[in-house]
Amino acid sequence: MARGTTLSIDAMGGDHAPGVVVDGLALLVADRPDTRLILFGDEAALTPLVAAHPGLSGKCEIVHCEHKITSDMKPSQALRRGKGSSMWNALEAVKDGRAGAAVSAGNTGALMAISMLVLRKMDGVHRPAMTAVWPTLKGRSIVLDVGANVEADAAQLVTFAIMGEAYARATLGKERPTIGLLNIGSEEMKGHDEVREAHEMLRTLDLDLDYRGFVEGDDISMGSVDVIVTDGFTGNVALKAGEGVARMLATRVREALTRNLATKAGAVLAASGLAALREQMNPSNANGGVLLGLGGVSVKSHGGTDARGFATACRLAADLATSHYPEEVAANLARIQQRGTATG
Amino acid sequence: MARGTTLSIDAMGGDHAPGVVVDGLALLVADRPDTRLILFGDEAALTPLVAAHPGLSGKCEIVHCEHKITSDMKPSQALRRGKGSSMWNALEAVKDGRAGAAVSAGNTGALMAISMLVLRKMDGVHRPAMTAVWPTLKGRSIVLDVGANVEADAAQLVTFAIMGEAYARATLGKERPTIGLLNIGSEEMKGHDEVREAHEMLRTLDLDLDYRGFVEGDDISMGSVDVIVTDGFTGNVALKAGEGVARMLATRVREALTRNLATKAGAVLAASGLAALREQMNPSNANGGVLLGLGGVSVKSHGGTDARGFATACRLAADLATSHYPEEVAANLARIQQRGTATG
Repeated sequence: MARGTTLSIDAMGGDHAPGVVVDGLALLVADRPDTRLILFGDEAALTPLVAAHPGLSGKCEIVHCEHKITSDMKPSQALRRGKGSSMWNALEAVKDGRAGAAVSAGNTGALMAISMLVLRKMDGVHRPAMTAVWPTLKGRSIVLDVGANVEADAAQLVTFAIMGEAYARATLGKERPTIGLLNIGSEEMKGHDEVREAHEMLRTLDLDLDYRGFVEGDDISMGSVDVIVTDGFTGNVALKAGEGVARMLATRVREALTRNLATKAGAVLAASGLAALREQMNPSNANGGVLLGLGGVSVKSHGGTDARGFATACRLAADLATSHYPEEVAANLARIQQRGTATG
Repeated sequence: MARGTTLSIDAMGGDHAPGVVVDGLALLVADRPDTRLILFGDEAALTPLVAAHPGLSGKCEIVHCEHKITSDMKPSQALRRGKGSSMWNALEAVKDGRAGAAVSAGNTGALMAISMLVLRKMDGVHRPAMTAVWPTLKGRSIVLDVGANVEADAAQLVTFAIMGEAYARATLGKERPTIGLLNIGSEEMKGHDEVREAHEMLRTLDLDLDYRGFVEGDDISMGSVDVIVTDGFTGNVALKAGEGVARMLATRVREALTRNLATKAGAVLAASGLAALREQMNPSNANGGVLLGLGGVSVKSHGGTDARGFATACRLAADLATSHYPEEVAANLARIQQRGTATG
C-alpha cells in the first residue's frame, strides 16, 4: 500500500462532525477504492457510523482520542491543550509516516498552529501559505496566501509562487501552471515595494516557472492565470469579498425568479439550466485549503461543508500526497539559494 | 445661482466622449433642472451636440480647450503637458469657484495627479483617498481607499473613516452612516499593526462617528456597514475581485438560461424579473469615484460609461458640492488634532 494513499482524518472537526466526515469518506472510497483511512476521534461514536457504510469496510482504522479541539479555541490555547486531540493525533500520523496527508474540518487557526508545530516547515520556507481554490470562467485557479500571514516580503512572495505552482500541477492537473502576481493600477503607479521586488525576482531568477507578470483583482475570476500570488491579508480580503458578491448575486437571482407568476413559471422551465449552474458554483466542488510549505500535507476543509465537500478536500489531500510537489518546491528553492538571493 | 449647482465638465474625457458626456448631461438636467454646466472641450464638436438637446438650452456654457489628456498618458506626463487641457481647465474652474465640482470620465491617474496639484489637499489631510460605491444586499455602501495610495498608516485610515462618513451622509442620504475597518481572520490573529492601531484610535478618539469595529471581506456585499475603510491596495483588489466574480456569474447565468429550448423559454417568461435584476446591478447606477480630501470636488466617471452612468456621476458631484461634507470633515479632523494624536 503506497504511503500516499493513506489519509489521516480528524473525525471530530467541523460543524457536522463526525457524521458528515464519515459520509464524506464513504463517497471518497467509492471513486478512489485504493484509499486507506485512519480516523481519529471518539471510537464509540465512530464505530457505528463507519459500520453503516459497507464501502468503508476493511479500509478504516479507528484510533480513539479522548478529546477534540473546539471551534472557539484560540490557536495559543490549542497549542497548550491540544495534545492527544483528534486533530493533533491526525497530524502526528502524517509526521510519523503512517499517513500521506491529514484532513480536518475543524478550527482553522488551531489547525494552522498545530500543523506548523507538528509537521514543521519545509527546508528553505520561512512562512507557510494558505491556499484557496477559486472558480473561474476557464475552470479553477489557486490563490495564495489567503490568510496564514498578514504580510509578505518579496522573497516570501516568490516562495509562495514556487509552492503554488507545484501545488497547482498536483491538484489542477495542469502540466505547466501559469503564475501571476496580484497588483493594482496603472504601469507607473504599480504596487508596493514588496510586489515590485518580487516581480523582478520572478522575472530574473531563472526559476522553473511560467511567470506571466502582474494581474489585477478581476483577472482572478477571468482565469487569466492558474496561480495568483499575494500576501495573506490581501488574499483573504479578495477571497471573502468575492464570496460576498457571489452570495449577494445568488440572493438577487432568486428574488428575480420569484418576482411574479411569470418569472416563477420561467424558473420552472429553466430548472435544468439553473441546476447545472448551481452544480457549477457548488462550493463543495472547490472545498479544501492547504497550508503549503510544511514538512507534510495538512488540508483544511470548510467547517460547514457537506459530505461531498469533505470528499473533495480528501481527494485534494490524496492528490497532493501522491504528487512530486515537495521535490519540485525543493528544486526551485535550491535555484534561489544558488543565486544567493533568498532572504528571511 | 448657488455655487454648488454649477458643475464643470471635462467633455473630452472617456471612451465615448464627447457624445456620451453631452447625452448624460441632458439626462442630468431633465431631473435636476437647477443645474448649470460649464463644458470644457472642443467647441466645434460640442456646439452641435449641445444644440441637439433642447433641455440643455441656456444651461450650458462651452469653454474651448485646444487639447485633451489621452487615456495612455502617464500621470507625470499629464502634469507636465496637461495645462490648458479640458480636464485641467475643468478642475481650475472648481479652484476658482466658478463651479462646485468637476466631473471627468478621462484618464484616472492623470485626474488624480492634476486634481491634487490644482485643488490641493484639504487642511489636515495628508493622503487623499479614492471612493467606490458598492452595491449590497441592503442598498449601497462606500469603500475607500480603492487605489489613490498603495499603503496607509493608522492615522491615514482614521482620516479615511472621517472623510468616508461625511461623504456617505452627503451621497447615500443616511443621517448617521456606520463605519467598519476591513480586516481578516480570528480575534487573536487580526490584521497588521496599522489596522489594529487605527481600530484603537477610532474607538477611543471621541470622534463624531458611528464606528462599528472590524468587518471582513464578505461583509461588504452584505451591507453590514455603510462605509468600509481600508488601504488603497487592499481596497482596489477587493473592488476588482468583486467585479470579476460578478462578471463571471453574469456569464454563467446567461449560459444557464440559453442551455436548451426549455431554459430559453423559461428565460422569456422570467424576462421581467431578469430585467429588474439587470437594472438593480447596472453599473450605471453606481458610477462615480471621488478623490476625497482635496480642497474641491473632483469626480471620476468610469471611462467606458454610458450616458446614464455619466449622469449618475454628475448627480453625485452635485450632491457632494451642495453638502456640508468639508465642514464635517474639518470638525472631526480638529477633534484629532486637539487630542494631539494626528500623525503624518
